[in-house]
Amino acid sequence: MAWNTNLRWRLPLACLLLQVLTVVLFGVFVRYDAEADAHWRTEKKIRNISSDLENEFYYRYPSFQDVHVMVFVGFGFLMTFLQRYGFSAVGFNFLLAAFGIQWALLIQGWLQSRQNGYIFLGVESLIKADFCVASVCVAFGAVLGKVSPIQLLIMTLFQVTLFAINEFILLNLLEVKDAGGSMTIHIFGAYFGLTVTWILYRRNLEQSKQRQSSVYHSDLFAMIGTLFLWMYWPSFNSAGSEHGDTQHRAVINTYCSLAASVLTSVAVSSALHKKGKLNMVHIQNATLAGGVGVGTAAEMMLMPYGALIVGFICGTFSTLGFMYLTPFLESRLRVQDTCGIHNLHGIPGIIGAIVGAVTASYATPEVYGESGLVHYFDFEGLKEKWTTKTQGKFQVFGLLLTLAMALLGGTIVGLILKLPFWGQAADENCFEDSVYWEIDEENSAVHLPEDPTLKPPAPVVPSVP
Amino acid sequence: MAWNTNLRWRLPLACLLLQVLTVVLFGVFVRYDAEADAHWRTEKKIRNISSDLENEFYYRYPSFQDVHVMVFVGFGFLMTFLQRYGFSAVGFNFLLAAFGIQWALLIQGWLQSRQNGYIFLGVESLIKADFCVASVCVAFGAVLGKVSPIQLLIMTLFQVTLFAINEFILLNLLEVKDAGGSMTIHIFGAYFGLTVTWILYRRNLEQSKQRQSSVYHSDLFAMIGTLFLWMYWPSFNSAGSEHGDTQHRAVINTYCSLAASVLTSVAVSSALHKKGKLNMVHIQNATLAGGVGVGTAAEMMLMPYGALIVGFICGTFSTLGFMYLTPFLESRLRVQDTCGIHNLHGIPGIIGAIVGAVTASYATPEVYGESGLVHYFDFEGLKEKWTTKTQGKFQVFGLLLTLAMALLGGTIVGLILKLPFWGQAADENCFEDSVYWEIDEENSAVHLPEDPTLKPPAPVVPSVP
Amino acid sequence: MAWNTNLRWRLPLACLLLQVLTVVLFGVFVRYDAEADAHWRTEKKIRNISSDLENEFYYRYPSFQDVHVMVFVGFGFLMTFLQRYGFSAVGFNFLLAAFGIQWALLIQGWLQSRQNGYIFLGVESLIKADFCVASVCVAFGAVLGKVSPIQLLIMTLFQVTLFAINEFILLNLLEVKDAGGSMTIHIFGAYFGLTVTWILYRRNLEQSKQRQSSVYHSDLFAMIGTLFLWMYWPSFNSAGSEHGDTQHRAVINTYCSLAASVLTSVAVSSALHKKGKLNMVHIQNATLAGGVGVGTAAEMMLMPYGALIVGFICGTFSTLGFMYLTPFLESRLRVQDTCGIHNLHGIPGIIGAIVGAVTASYATPEVYGESGLVHYFDFEGLKEKWTTKTQGKFQVFGLLLTLAMALLGGTIVGLILKLPFWGQAADENCFEDSVYWEIDEENSAVHLPEDPTLKPPAPVVPSVP
Repeated sequence: MAWNTNLRWRLPLACLLLQVLTVVLFGVFVRYDAEADAHWRTEKKIRNISSDLENEFYYRYPSFQDVHVMVFVGFGFLMTFLQRYGFSAVGFNFLLAAFGIQWALLIQGWLQSRQNGYIFLGVESLIKADFCVASVCVAFGAVLGKVSPIQLLIMTLFQVTLFAINEFILLNLLEVKDAGGSMTIHIFGAYFGLTVTWILYRRNLEQSKQRQSSVYHSDLFAMIGTLFLWMYWPSFNSAGSEHGDTQHRAVINTYCSLAASVLTSVAVSSALHKKGKLNMVHIQNATLAGGVGVGTAAEMMLMPYGALIVGFICGTFSTLGFMYLTPFLESRLRVQDTCGIHNLHGIPGIIGAIVGAVTASYATPEVYGESGLVHYFDFEGLKEKWTTKTQGKFQVFGLLLTLAMALLGGTIVGLILKLPFWGQAADENCFEDSVYWEIDEENSAVHLPEDPTLKPPAPVVPSVP
Repeated sequence: MAWNTNLRWRLPLACLLLQVLTVVLFGVFVRYDAEADAHWRTEKKIRNISSDLENEFYYRYPSFQDVHVMVFVGFGFLMTFLQRYGFSAVGFNFLLAAFGIQWALLIQGWLQSRQNGYIFLGVESLIKADFCVASVCVAFGAVLGKVSPIQLLIMTLFQVTLFAINEFILLNLLEVKDAGGSMTIHIFGAYFGLTVTWILYRRNLEQSKQRQSSVYHSDLFAMIGTLFLWMYWPSFNSAGSEHGDTQHRAVINTYCSLAASVLTSVAVSSALHKKGKLNMVHIQNATLAGGVGVGTAAEMMLMPYGALIVGFICGTFSTLGFMYLTPFLESRLRVQDTCGIHNLHGIPGIIGAIVGAVTASYATPEVYGESGLVHYFDFEGLKEKWTTKTQGKFQVFGLLLTLAMALLGGTIVGLILKLPFWGQAADENCFEDSVYWEIDEENSAVHLPEDPTLKPPAPVVPSVP
Repeated sequence: MAWNTNLRWRLPLACLLLQVLTVVLFGVFVRYDAEADAHWRTEKKIRNISSDLENEFYYRYPSFQDVHVMVFVGFGFLMTFLQRYGFSAVGFNFLLAAFGIQWALLIQGWLQSRQNGYIFLGVESLIKADFCVASVCVAFGAVLGKVSPIQLLIMTLFQVTLFAINEFILLNLLEVKDAGGSMTIHIFGAYFGLTVTWILYRRNLEQSKQRQSSVYHSDLFAMIGTLFLWMYWPSFNSAGSEHGDTQHRAVINTYCSLAASVLTSVAVSSALHKKGKLNMVHIQNATLAGGVGVGTAAEMMLMPYGALIVGFICGTFSTLGFMYLTPFLESRLRVQDTCGIHNLHGIPGIIGAIVGAVTASYATPEVYGESGLVHYFDFEGLKEKWTTKTQGKFQVFGLLLTLAMALLGGTIVGLILKLPFWGQAADENCFEDSVYWEIDEENSAVHLPEDPTLKPPAPVVPSVP
């Protein structure tokens, strides 16, 4: 299967077509939100706003920037762990996210905030677009090293669209709560990506096995991604929350959950190795599971100890997943999940959705305050007769629908990507940057002193018991 | 030309002299701004301010921190792409920026905000100082690898001064709009740096050619710089804008423009390679061109699709510049531009200045609101009779003046730096850290297993068609 | 001394026990602060707060995130400079900090903000917990490479507890001012860590000497840590300050001080080398000394030139310390200080404490405003009869007490850690990741082209004079 990986005309055409399309659609549909429009001076008077600080910008911009870092540096560098795929990890993530945010602004805007035929952009739109793209970055983790940039652009085009539809149904029709997107972002992204990689199954991938591992410094680069994801996750889970106590609480819950998942990841990682050694893959990934798991309930009155318990469980199961589930999925179910997204986003996402449903079901007026409960869950208007149990049920519907959408969507998109003319590499050339990147081979090796008798530092310890 | 690169007394003396000078000038002239002074408690009552949030600090501090990251990590790491010049890239950038911000606080403060003989520091001063230093970082890109740290300190001393004068003329006398500094920062920095490197032309630089390229991991380090610049550019272009809708709009425009330039950079980069492979240099640099190009008009009612078009054009021309213009400039015009700043800051800067002039010229009361137009362009007092066309004309004057200042200033500073006693390296020792840094050669090589028969992972794919 | 470094049961048990303990204590004691609780809607009306922006969250969240980055990426990557200890530097720092913040929330909450038996969490608690953990990260620098993760967890458990007690005595009983924690964080962390490493003296550590140095790329990784610490230090020193001018002023002072310490570090580093070459260790560390030194006085009316002078002095003495004091401490006093924390946190911390005491002593109503002086130093209630001299004296008491607590606490904890069953490595296996991390040796070496005749780029310049 020696596919043609020369993208000379296909990739430029794909990029330019998509970008021209976006420009045209932006021209027709997209305008500034009232709070970003020069008419704001008049608008302020109408709305009787005295301080510019009441502009939504000041409530959300710092969180937006943190989310932006997570999408581009966080996911980008997390995937640089492969020894010869760093350029593609960071570069293709950059490409797909840069296209994805534009497309998301259009589709999400069209579905959720169209007024008089126009889409109005403000800082909340930027956050929502970044959220949507995060879901594509998750899916990218499953197919990392096995797809061409054209396939990624196509996947982004479809996944963003399906994401927005699923999100619209969950948040606007089912009135589900999902602050940090355990369902809309993580479950959708994970099972979509896993289905795509299942369809794209490569029989002879072990021919690239040598390259499907890390080297010392590539693991350190990946830790840059891990840490920026970990540190900014409280911003992620709170970026779209309501002002005041809700944003505040989402931060605290996420902070706690993440801390706990670090300890249990380390514990399980060490317990699973016969000499008790830690595995870098677990530390890079499972430590983040707490952020995924607390996504749906981040805004809720989960209580700090509740958040710790969620992180505790997610860190544990995520690490176990890397150890036992990933090899099983690959050998038995033919799901080749490069980054183990099932362990970082799939399992913790499902835990998060269930935690959210349960926490909503058991919400009481004592804990939220009478007006707080009605306000937080919007038990007004059409939802006037809802109880917390109703909310809990709808949370479960949301979970199931998301799974269905992801599996169905992933199948269709997988089949499209399976077509042989997208420039994908042969099985023996996977996980290799030089397929798509100009690399000066002579220089790409790290240079050494010419004198071969020069003694290098001992690479291993003389005798570790 | 075996110059003496031993900086033992020259560098310490230069640093200490400049630092003592700065301390003395700060002692004589610099005080806290009213909003950072302990008298604020009284001041608040006088100004009838009820909330501490109305302190400028809360409007701007998050953006300031983002700009700070761009200057130190963004520019610093962007320049680590060279295989043996990472210490100098990050370290000298650190040094010149640390001195530059102090000097900029003095000169900008003296020119723009002196009151009763004092300079008053607040968060806006810190942002403006970082902006000014960004311009020096741009120029550093042109001379990277060819100058000593002493030359960089001298260049910073002069460039900051000239920058502040040019900025003062543009913003305060010509009343030009330049939110993100397409003119004041990028054009000035680029043409200043290019002129300096033209004066410092090195005939035998190809003797260092071997080191004037990247290795695999140095390119990944550079991507850290690229991404932090890209992600935080919306903060850069909005950091100094007016409160409310103006800051909000500058963020949206920059976000859009940057996204578009990623796609066109990738498109052109792939189209220019005979096998359609991407070039890391383009991805590291041209993807940022959208941020430069939208600098002047970032605050204006450019419309989101307008911002996309600007990014589209800048990404395209920037990549073409790397491919065709840089070699031409080097071979024909003797301009040795190490980082290709002409493509990232020069061309997109000029595009940005023109976009700004045109957008200002065609501003209408319908789009800005009657009061908004007058307010945004300050068509009051001395400017009462100005029309948007007048504004447009002055924008063009600003562009031309900036070019003249940069070329003239660059020539003078270049001639000063050409003097032979600043510790510059010989042509064959350029782009080499060990000239100015203690490097333990034995350890600086990446260590390897001692057994030479150990089979390393295949560095190239067996057969890429 | 071939200790058993197999942590298979010990590390998991330690992690799980500590995490279960934390969950239980959180369950019993920890609740949301009023501003993060769903009852906030009612609370707001009681407190007559009209805007959600008055929620503490919006005053502090951006600074909190910066501090968070400093703790996890800043300290983590700063310590990756060792050639074979990057995984442990980043990973163990991650582990201890993730546990430490939970424990700090409990102990600090219990001592400082317990109400009706409960601890209430808000964004200020998160900042204080990060501060506390920063102190443990400092101490980690002294013992880096020589302790097992279990020892680190035990050290964290005790150090966090002692830190919180010391902080309580200083801030709440002695009413000392210490915005950026020159005393509570840096002096305490440094002398605690130095005492621990003194107790844990390893006689034959030179057997690991080969690994106790950097390689080229590990030094670049460390610069990521340095720069994020440097850039976000203004947030650190201002994160806990009072709203308004105080936070604003703390940022300006820290910005100035840090800038000055870069120039003097470079000056002294170059002057100390016979060829005037810079030492990467100095640039990575001493440039940060200005942030430590201005910690106590950051909020005070130190004046910008005062901040510059502090940075000037700290950069100088810190670099001199690396050159002369560290070797002396090791050879004569048996203090093996891996990262040189005495130079970065010890000396500048003491300078900072003295600067704070002096600045407080000489505070005048002219400079602070009559009400400002009383307000800033809390000269009300029990402190009504205090003068600025009294404040100065108490600042000195705070310094002395902190030193005593650190030495005493360090001794006790050092003795506990000296017990032989914590999984520490033998002297010849220190500074080596593979003791505690699964490393695929074949892949951990950077791969090279197989052809040994391939000429690598010259690693050194042919003839540097």
